[in-house]
Amino acid sequence: MEFDDILSTSRQELRRGTVVLACLLKLREAGYGYALLEELRELGFAVDANTLYPLLRRLEAQGMLVSEWNTQETRPRKFYRTSPEGERLASELLADWDQVDASVRRLGQGGHTS
Amino acid sequence: MEFDDILSTSRQELRRGTVVLACLLKLREAGYGYALLEELRELGFAVDANTLYPLLRRLEAQGMLVSEWNTQETRPRKFYRTSPEGERLASELLADWDQVDASVRRLGQGGHTS
Repeated sequence: MEFDDILSTSRQELRRGTVVLACLLKLREAGYGYALLEELRELGFAVDANTLYPLLRRLEAQGMLVSEWNTQETRPRKFYRTSPEGERLASELLADWDQVDASVRRLGQGGHTS
Repeated sequence: MEFDDILSTSRQELRRGTVVLACLLKLREAGYGYALLEELRELGFAVDANTLYPLLRRLEAQGMLVSEWNTQETRPRKFYRTSPEGERLASELLADWDQVDASVRRLGQGGHTS
């Protein structure tokens, strides 16, 4: 396995865990799957449709998102929005993020940089 | 699935992707598996032995870590240390971390806090 492959895999792993949090934060404003996919990609969250769509359904089943069909446009789209429970989850995870970030940065300061 | 279970699972996911980076940074100073496990736990990285030990072997096989047996103590221990390649990987991932962190925080500012 070449360095670039190892880097690419590690990068994906680094981002994967943040996708739930990113969805909950982003869907404070209602949005549909495809638009969310594009927005998350622009923000640098590596996620594909085969991961995101089941994740949205799972978060809805868990009560973290609510959904509504918008049938006013030519093509009906399911809009998701973060529920109050989802907002609570997002707040907890954001606080967690601060801890993880502080730990990573503390470790990062420990050595030489190249 | 209760809120606390969902939170706990999401928390683990948030941390899981950082374990490779944390190992590479921590092992700039040589260390053995069990001590590393304890140190990572103290820093809040959720990782268990069944995940960490295979990960260390994988990173060694990939050339990101080098190892050496210390046989001077009563019980021989395998000490790992981050290789120059591993240091390069760590530097790249740290730069990535800055991007992910900036994206999460940008999203986090978007909404109301509870």
